[in-house]
Amino acid sequence: MVVVMAPEATEEDIARVVERVEEVGGEAFVSRGVTRTIIGLVGDIDSFHHLNLRSFAGVADVHRISAPYKLVSRQHHPARSTVWVGRPETGLVPIGPQSFTFMAGPCAVETPEQTLEAAQMARAAGATIIRGGAYKPRSSPYSFQGLGAAGLKILADVRTVTGLPVVTEVVDARDVEIVAEYADMLQIGTRNMANFGLLQAAGDAGKPILLKRGMNSTIEEWLLAAEYVAQRGNLDIVLCERGIRTFEPATRNTLDISAVPVVQAASHLPVIVDPSHASGRKDLVVPLSRAAIAVGADAIIVDVHPHPENALCDGPQALLGTELRELAQAVRQLPGAVGRVDAATLMRQPA
Amino acid sequence: MVVVMAPEATEEDIARVVERVEEVGGEAFVSRGVTRTIIGLVGDIDSFHHLNLRSFAGVADVHRISAPYKLVSRQHHPARSTVWVGRPETGLVPIGPQSFTFMAGPCAVETPEQTLEAAQMARAAGATIIRGGAYKPRSSPYSFQGLGAAGLKILADVRTVTGLPVVTEVVDARDVEIVAEYADMLQIGTRNMANFGLLQAAGDAGKPILLKRGMNSTIEEWLLAAEYVAQRGNLDIVLCERGIRTFEPATRNTLDISAVPVVQAASHLPVIVDPSHASGRKDLVVPLSRAAIAVGADAIIVDVHPHPENALCDGPQALLGTELRELAQAVRQLPGAVGRVDAATLMRQPA
Amino acid sequence: MVVVMAPEATEEDIARVVERVEEVGGEAFVSRGVTRTIIGLVGDIDSFHHLNLRSFAGVADVHRISAPYKLVSRQHHPARSTVWVGRPETGLVPIGPQSFTFMAGPCAVETPEQTLEAAQMARAAGATIIRGGAYKPRSSPYSFQGLGAAGLKILADVRTVTGLPVVTEVVDARDVEIVAEYADMLQIGTRNMANFGLLQAAGDAGKPILLKRGMNSTIEEWLLAAEYVAQRGNLDIVLCERGIRTFEPATRNTLDISAVPVVQAASHLPVIVDPSHASGRKDLVVPLSRAAIAVGADAIIVDVHPHPENALCDGPQALLGTELRELAQAVRQLPGAVGRVDAATLMRQPA
Amino acid sequence: MVVVMAPEATEEDIARVVERVEEVGGEAFVSRGVTRTIIGLVGDIDSFHHLNLRSFAGVADVHRISAPYKLVSRQHHPARSTVWVGRPETGLVPIGPQSFTFMAGPCAVETPEQTLEAAQMARAAGATIIRGGAYKPRSSPYSFQGLGAAGLKILADVRTVTGLPVVTEVVDARDVEIVAEYADMLQIGTRNMANFGLLQAAGDAGKPILLKRGMNSTIEEWLLAAEYVAQRGNLDIVLCERGIRTFEPATRNTLDISAVPVVQAASHLPVIVDPSHASGRKDLVVPLSRAAIAVGADAIIVDVHPHPENALCDGPQALLGTELRELAQAVRQLPGAVGRVDAATLMRQPA
Repeated sequence: MVVVMAPEATEEDIARVVERVEEVGGEAFVSRGVTRTIIGLVGDIDSFHHLNLRSFAGVADVHRISAPYKLVSRQHHPARSTVWVGRPETGLVPIGPQSFTFMAGPCAVETPEQTLEAAQMARAAGATIIRGGAYKPRSSPYSFQGLGAAGLKILADVRTVTGLPVVTEVVDARDVEIVAEYADMLQIGTRNMANFGLLQAAGDAGKPILLKRGMNSTIEEWLLAAEYVAQRGNLDIVLCERGIRTFEPATRNTLDISAVPVVQAASHLPVIVDPSHASGRKDLVVPLSRAAIAVGADAIIVDVHPHPENALCDGPQALLGTELRELAQAVRQLPGAVGRVDAATLMRQPA
Repeated sequence: MVVVMAPEATEEDIARVVERVEEVGGEAFVSRGVTRTIIGLVGDIDSFHHLNLRSFAGVADVHRISAPYKLVSRQHHPARSTVWVGRPETGLVPIGPQSFTFMAGPCAVETPEQTLEAAQMARAAGATIIRGGAYKPRSSPYSFQGLGAAGLKILADVRTVTGLPVVTEVVDARDVEIVAEYADMLQIGTRNMANFGLLQAAGDAGKPILLKRGMNSTIEEWLLAAEYVAQRGNLDIVLCERGIRTFEPATRNTLDISAVPVVQAASHLPVIVDPSHASGRKDLVVPLSRAAIAVGADAIIVDVHPHPENALCDGPQALLGTELRELAQAVRQLPGAVGRVDAATLMRQPA
Repeated sequence: MVVVMAPEATEEDIARVVERVEEVGGEAFVSRGVTRTIIGLVGDIDSFHHLNLRSFAGVADVHRISAPYKLVSRQHHPARSTVWVGRPETGLVPIGPQSFTFMAGPCAVETPEQTLEAAQMARAAGATIIRGGAYKPRSSPYSFQGLGAAGLKILADVRTVTGLPVVTEVVDARDVEIVAEYADMLQIGTRNMANFGLLQAAGDAGKPILLKRGMNSTIEEWLLAAEYVAQRGNLDIVLCERGIRTFEPATRNTLDISAVPVVQAASHLPVIVDPSHASGRKDLVVPLSRAAIAVGADAIIVDVHPHPENALCDGPQALLGTELRELAQAVRQLPGAVGRVDAATLMRQPA
Repeated sequence: MVVVMAPEATEEDIARVVERVEEVGGEAFVSRGVTRTIIGLVGDIDSFHHLNLRSFAGVADVHRISAPYKLVSRQHHPARSTVWVGRPETGLVPIGPQSFTFMAGPCAVETPEQTLEAAQMARAAGATIIRGGAYKPRSSPYSFQGLGAAGLKILADVRTVTGLPVVTEVVDARDVEIVAEYADMLQIGTRNMANFGLLQAAGDAGKPILLKRGMNSTIEEWLLAAEYVAQRGNLDIVLCERGIRTFEPATRNTLDISAVPVVQAASHLPVIVDPSHASGRKDLVVPLSRAAIAVGADAIIVDVHPHPENALCDGPQALLGTELRELAQAVRQLPGAVGRVDAATLMRQPA
């Protein structure tokens, strides 16, 4: 950390900072400038935080220098990680730096038929992991809130039929146990990225976690949320960029495509892209999926629905027909152009 | 609702929209323009939502016209509401359109002494409700997370000594019961505004709710979050503007002062301002408090701490000494200039 | 400045930074930490900027510590400034820390009658400076672009009739001369805050400048824009907060009320608020004006129009009737509550 | 347009809207709902704008339905356009839907040697158009402001040596003539996107225009800025996405990659990406360039510099060495994967 003293700081102010830093076992290096003095701190950063140096007399500013997350940082774990999703009967699907994984399914589980049909569309287009929501966090209490436990059972049946592992969202710490029983991967949604009790409960559940970025969260806050999961002993975390809130109204959110290489430079965790929720527009899903593959995302996760007009959730962004065929083609062709293989070829096969 | 057809929409596309609207019991009025056709819908808006009109062939856009919230809307409840906070031994403090209420206390409950000292500073400055956090949602898992149940007991003791009611945050649905047992008002924090399970649990707790605006939330989403609480039969909701996230780095968040009159035009619920968390800067708390009173806020809620240098949370924004005296003066003088009386004069006295 | 070295930086990397800093006459203080080294720089900051230290091998980050503006900074000019607006026949109206100034008029000059009527409404409500646009920067080339030079003449006639000085916008460096001939104060609008050629031309014109904040600009960038004017020898600059662009759609922009005390802490220049353009909503102008006075703004500038329904520009935000009377009352009463007097009482009277 | 009446609107209010719409030659279709009435307007939208319907008694809101730009819209010009850049001695390079064009060069022209060296690096990496700034708009008046006319001459010399056309920025309407004399394409920078006088002067200059998106501008405002140029009879406009301002600090701006397909759906003009200024980070330029090619951009424009450590402008983002080789490889290989050919193969050869 670096402490910047105000121009009007006195020698006593400077001495006080040095003294307190030394009291907690740190070292302080004082550099006196023409108009102001700066003090570099060396030692245990957590002990410095507790000093509240920003509140000291004469202190103008405090700059943190090292990253505040540890377990998910690439600094102590330079090799990028692969997370494996699945179970004996489905095999294990990798999400990581060698492969490219296509995940798809309906936004919400509505009926057994609709879910199975969407999953079969997804598999036919090349998907190796099925998505689908049983618990839906909705801005309005008057919108469809999901089927709950009944939806989990439908997803489990779809897994049996398709042979593909399933990822689904959990929105309440009290539901983690039942969701973990049915699902192969637990999704933490954008509205819950800073629901720390849920992050901890999910971290204890013994399943891989798909952690969506908060629509209002910086990349640093997102990695700190992953640190909450990692602290429970679970490093099987996949990060998902899904758009941030900006002033631009043409898309529902603004896909922050730069987040993919930024995360890859800072963290060893896999990072993927959700072009459907980022844009909210079906006509943008194919070009944004292409961009995600080319930028180096480890996977994409896409909404498909057999009958978007009847969808109970986010129908306008669900793919079918022509667009899904175009997407399937991009998924087959582009990963090779950026040095990746289809995740299917690296799967650990079912027992 | 208004459905805007694309320029290339066919007569069949138009007929299909009209037909589906009529099937669910609505009426559709077709206006044919030079380059495009618009269709006005009359009837039950919820049934129209389920149609997913945006997914229909030939539909370019769908505009919603009426507000999506009901119970908290001023449309069906034109008179502005007063929420009463307290219990027999403290009396009941109003937050509403006639009065101005000053709420203050430490960001976090750290020790019995620090909490009591802060509460006494607050009361001496004119506060009639004490704030203090026992459960702290923190971006980093390495930051102080609050004392939990032990902190609640400290707050209850402070209430006994000061005679003032207490508001404190609840961050997990599983803690609502114990927090409601000790506190007089339950705060839902900015990170949990869209934690719908928590909103519903808090709505069932039988205590007034202080609902902070999500730092990334529109005013409409905030009112929809209040609707989640109201649907459980609890209309004792106070809304708190606490800054939104923008590109400006000089303040921690940008206080959206306009939100106060915007909410007052749309909803009957009281609305208050938190200048401490909005700015994160002690030197801005007094001017922003003045602005909040003048714009017509029903209350302000401010961090005070006897020893900001030792605060375990948000020390840089806590007031003491000169600034607290200036604030006390503003709280005494300005409300009268905008037609309000001190909440203390309207209290329902202790039994 | 502080240079933060990457964890993998070598001794050569560190030596190279020190060497280059010393070559340009600076001093470098090296603090070696457990995982990384930081280097504090002392000396002429401009010479350091040219080094491009961020591009050096082993450098992770560079933090600037002192403010990048000088002439407008409060650091070397602690007393807050007053800017005087007017000419012999109108007298000089102050905008500064002792007084509160009310500026009003139509968004656009449309006809002599409309402009005079609006100016008389403004004067009757307590305004001492008249605003009105002759050159209008409009997002669409199909919107009304202003009357140009004819509008300037109308404004001059209105000055003659009302005896009040006039502020009007200049949008092109080629028009500065003619605008300066007719106007008493030159406004640089939000879209031109970073039009540096225009800033320099306006700085040369020998008139006070009203510099609106760019709707996308940080406060630091705004003060740097003022520095462009100040560098031409003109320190008669008044800063105007007029809302920034955020995700909130309820208001046209989000009034950043905190900008007023933030600017007052950083700069000696007067700072005022435009509640009309910030909100775009007539019903918010009175509460936001109250907030602006209470927060400590040196003036407000408000749109009034005798017939908003016929206004060629921004009719929805123009005041008349009841709202204007409410505003007049706030302007009379509130400044006293925050220790200011009406600017009229401090005027330097006409010759 | 659709006019939404307030719930409390009277029959007179409705009649008044209908009457005024008919007076200006339009038609009004009234749809009466349970709680409110909506009125659809058919006719000339410009005449409706002048009515200021939003200011009428009883009007709650007005929704515009059709796009406000015309000449640049795809609605009346469905085929996507190709813009040709160059002159007899260089040949003409296309920017359009069949090809992919690589544009590169130094951020600023500093010396003849540096500019030529950067241009030769760019050409060796596959660039067919050279970029370089002679006039630099800088936030701080203390930063390097460019060489001006001397820089233009250097660029012309570089064109002679390399045989490649040159694009350079113009920041002031008074410089358009001289810049147009030396350059093959005029760039309007992000800070000047809403400098309407400059847009009009550039539109008159008889050269293709590279119009960067304002960092705070919506896509609609950007297309309206293009409309200002188009109105002068110049449709040779290339749009450049270069990042927008958001809350995320990891990158200088947030590249809005979705803007490429959004613009392509709305406008026939070519649209390109500047990954260097969007990110401000050299390590992100290659992945973001890949994303831009894959999403369907018609070109990219990239900063290269022979000695980034000595660059007078934006050194931290300039490519050389390994990264430039990686970029050259992406430019050779990826366009084919999305159905495009290298612009060089479609050039109209020098005379």
